[in-house]
Amino acid sequence: MTPTIRQIAEAIGARAEGAVDTVVTGAAEPADAGPDQIALAMSSTYAKALGAGSARAAMLWADADWKALGLEAAILVPRPRLAMAGLTGLLDPGQRYPEGIHPSAVIDPSAKLGPDVSVGPMACIGPGASIGAGSVVGPQCYIGAEAVLGRDARLHAGVRLMARVRIGDRFIAQAGAVVGSDGHSFVTPEQSTVEQARASLGTNVTAAPQSWVRIHSLGAVIVGDDVELGANACVDSGTIRPTEIANGCKIDNLCHVAHNVRIGRDCLFAACAAVAGSTDIGNNVILGGQVGVSDNITIGDNVVAGGGTKILSRVPAGRVVLGYPAMKMDTHIDTYKALRRLPRLAEQVARLQKAVFKSDENH
Amino acid sequence: MTPTIRQIAEAIGARAEGAVDTVVTGAAEPADAGPDQIALAMSSTYAKALGAGSARAAMLWADADWKALGLEAAILVPRPRLAMAGLTGLLDPGQRYPEGIHPSAVIDPSAKLGPDVSVGPMACIGPGASIGAGSVVGPQCYIGAEAVLGRDARLHAGVRLMARVRIGDRFIAQAGAVVGSDGHSFVTPEQSTVEQARASLGTNVTAAPQSWVRIHSLGAVIVGDDVELGANACVDSGTIRPTEIANGCKIDNLCHVAHNVRIGRDCLFAACAAVAGSTDIGNNVILGGQVGVSDNITIGDNVVAGGGTKILSRVPAGRVVLGYPAMKMDTHIDTYKALRRLPRLAEQVARLQKAVFKSDENH
Amino acid sequence: MTPTIRQIAEAIGARAEGAVDTVVTGAAEPADAGPDQIALAMSSTYAKALGAGSARAAMLWADADWKALGLEAAILVPRPRLAMAGLTGLLDPGQRYPEGIHPSAVIDPSAKLGPDVSVGPMACIGPGASIGAGSVVGPQCYIGAEAVLGRDARLHAGVRLMARVRIGDRFIAQAGAVVGSDGHSFVTPEQSTVEQARASLGTNVTAAPQSWVRIHSLGAVIVGDDVELGANACVDSGTIRPTEIANGCKIDNLCHVAHNVRIGRDCLFAACAAVAGSTDIGNNVILGGQVGVSDNITIGDNVVAGGGTKILSRVPAGRVVLGYPAMKMDTHIDTYKALRRLPRLAEQVARLQKAVFKSDENH
Repeated sequence: MTPTIRQIAEAIGARAEGAVDTVVTGAAEPADAGPDQIALAMSSTYAKALGAGSARAAMLWADADWKALGLEAAILVPRPRLAMAGLTGLLDPGQRYPEGIHPSAVIDPSAKLGPDVSVGPMACIGPGASIGAGSVVGPQCYIGAEAVLGRDARLHAGVRLMARVRIGDRFIAQAGAVVGSDGHSFVTPEQSTVEQARASLGTNVTAAPQSWVRIHSLGAVIVGDDVELGANACVDSGTIRPTEIANGCKIDNLCHVAHNVRIGRDCLFAACAAVAGSTDIGNNVILGGQVGVSDNITIGDNVVAGGGTKILSRVPAGRVVLGYPAMKMDTHIDTYKALRRLPRLAEQVARLQKAVFKSDENH
Repeated sequence: MTPTIRQIAEAIGARAEGAVDTVVTGAAEPADAGPDQIALAMSSTYAKALGAGSARAAMLWADADWKALGLEAAILVPRPRLAMAGLTGLLDPGQRYPEGIHPSAVIDPSAKLGPDVSVGPMACIGPGASIGAGSVVGPQCYIGAEAVLGRDARLHAGVRLMARVRIGDRFIAQAGAVVGSDGHSFVTPEQSTVEQARASLGTNVTAAPQSWVRIHSLGAVIVGDDVELGANACVDSGTIRPTEIANGCKIDNLCHVAHNVRIGRDCLFAACAAVAGSTDIGNNVILGGQVGVSDNITIGDNVVAGGGTKILSRVPAGRVVLGYPAMKMDTHIDTYKALRRLPRLAEQVARLQKAVFKSDENH
Repeated sequence: MTPTIRQIAEAIGARAEGAVDTVVTGAAEPADAGPDQIALAMSSTYAKALGAGSARAAMLWADADWKALGLEAAILVPRPRLAMAGLTGLLDPGQRYPEGIHPSAVIDPSAKLGPDVSVGPMACIGPGASIGAGSVVGPQCYIGAEAVLGRDARLHAGVRLMARVRIGDRFIAQAGAVVGSDGHSFVTPEQSTVEQARASLGTNVTAAPQSWVRIHSLGAVIVGDDVELGANACVDSGTIRPTEIANGCKIDNLCHVAHNVRIGRDCLFAACAAVAGSTDIGNNVILGGQVGVSDNITIGDNVVAGGGTKILSRVPAGRVVLGYPAMKMDTHIDTYKALRRLPRLAEQVARLQKAVFKSDENH
């Protein structure tokens, strides 16, 4: 796609000025931009590098003086990252998977494919599966028995949707993502060490070694509309009822969502975040990279957990947390500062003891 | 499968009462259960929701009064999660992979397949590989040269068993799991920054930059019987001897087991747990989600590590640990409480200094 | 390969003594070694186990007295792990993927394959892709449109290189690795909770719930020469410019490299390390297992981060860090010791308060 400056501005709902009929072949950072690329310089800091490149047109902040920057045309945007979303969506050439049903794909005759579905080379679709109109099943994907996938999905290479998962419209899954693997749910015939450790807060573990008996996952997974799942991310099936991910969630690479978890609307999980079994996550929750959430707890709406946070107990709605175990972010910052001063504090106490008790012994 | 209440009770070794010839079509949570489903209500809390559904039969705790709950039949169980294992195993319809050897599979003529082995679409089996009777190799799986897989295995879509791994009976691997990837083992021609950092406890790193030389992995992996591996989990090959996972281990999604690690019997690792190279793990060890274990250390039998624990040094048998670095769980709880009070403690010391030294200066 | 002791010594540049024409069929640990295997006993500790095995030849430390150990031949090495690299490289039988282009592979006619390229069963290569001489594309791999892969690469089973990634020579990717998945980059139409949390250090989050708008990834990934990527590891495409990994980097299983990240030469990341978006990592940086690095920060050359470290802000060159949040390693050790003594310190302060103020009340 080679749009004009005017077409880009219209598509993203922004204002274009100057030589708006200039055609651009792609986007670039200011210093890298060629004469036919639109440079992205959404702040005056970035705009300084325009001179190092040869852009004739740029996307700039709302009140930028584009003529003074030596440009011939400009798109002026009030919220730069939102404009970036529009621009990149317009210019994305995509993966260019082959269209139509590839002859090497293996599709069970009982599977139902809507109009304009593409199925890539070496993909496999199981009995009774159903795929909505316009969806793209990439190369080497697997869609299991009786799985339901909505309209306009895009499954990248090697995605696995296991039996009986039900997924809404406009689902995107990056390469290697798995939905509907069996939950990791086991039980010992008698009380186990981990049950004892929980019951005694770790003080008393005497259970005899036992082997684990498997609890099967009958519940599959139900995923809403407009959900995106990152590369090699995993969502396990529920035990009796489905694991649930509501509309609009965006879950990054290598994340883990365990059996029976419920995730509310529009949550955003950064890479390697993991949620343990049967935990309930509210709407609009943000988990930073490598965040962990314990099993069987509740995270309220609008919670934000900074990178690396380990949430071991319930978090009320609206709280911003950080640390291991998770604390309110400002408490964490205070605690961390005090911790850095702790060796000095210990010296002060030693001197006080000496002065008060004429000794540094422990009284 | 549509068993009667009596058949379920017999299969799981529990007691059935009432209309035990009622046929059930599946299991459900109390509030969701239809008239032909068995509701699972293993405590009085869950039983309260039975009225919201329309179950006529339920699985209940050992001394439940099922008639008072308005039911026509009941299965009474002493250990609910164990009964759940039996019930879900009985009702699991599985993935319904096609039976037999799919014509699109590529199987080296020197591979040996036992009786009743299924090989799914687009699976690939290398030279000299051996697969035991009754095993299911799912769609798009890969089994490498001279790999040995025991009886009654179930490899889900896209599992990779690399060359020369040896795996026991009843192995289950979820989609995308990898066994026998090369170990991450490199060496610099001269002492490297990381060797210096270890030797000097981090105070002195002056090594010149060098490139890494690869140590190849000749040892493959040996896995016992009844092991389960989660989706996209990885187990690396050993350098000279095999990486070892003993009978009965259950390893969750996205876990990592590095080269030369030895894991004892019946260990349970939750998702995203990672064990670094050459570490020895005892029997019946439980690692919570996102637990990390350093290289070249020993973890004793029956150790339990809570979620997010980072184990940087040896842990004796039977210990319950938590935190980063790992501490005994009760020490961790005391320390954490003291940490929360630390800013207040610092204020108290400042006041003491003022009172004792007539100054809050550092003496 | 069954080399003689002399051939091994020549290949790794070491000294051989004794019956140097002895042929060996493989390598083994001292206690496991058969009469035709070379035992690896690079320290006197390991050499003690030679008696338990039946090795006639061994690889030993530089001034070992091999005759006294009852051996017939020996290779004497000054830096054991470097010798291990040479020896294991020599003896590695590899995966034995079939040579040539497998008839089941699907290769777009516009893809360009250099001489001596192998393409395994069920691999798929997209339009305009280019693969350098001698490269091995394993079974079930995917190479996307216009992707460029250099010479002598080795892609293990199920590796995915997405559209337009550019990779240098001698690239190794373990099973299931993904290069060029879309970045996890989203924006809300108005300011979001996470933007508010960052701006207010977590004290004030009042944003109304909003849905996320997707920022597409146009920049792909550029990878240098001699890079290795672990099993199921993921590298995301950049937004406008490519995500960059320079020559010589070795990245372990299940690592995550986000969009726009730049990684310098010869970095070594252990398993499950994750680097968030737009962060710059210097040359020769070592990240331990499960290390996390926040977005939009800079890590200097030669930084070493111990296992589990969470780096939330800039780290200057040469620093050795540990902890969450990351501290200098010696500070972390001091702090950790003080933390262990903290409950006792609190008791001491309580006694001081009582003595000084005749009360343990908070003054």
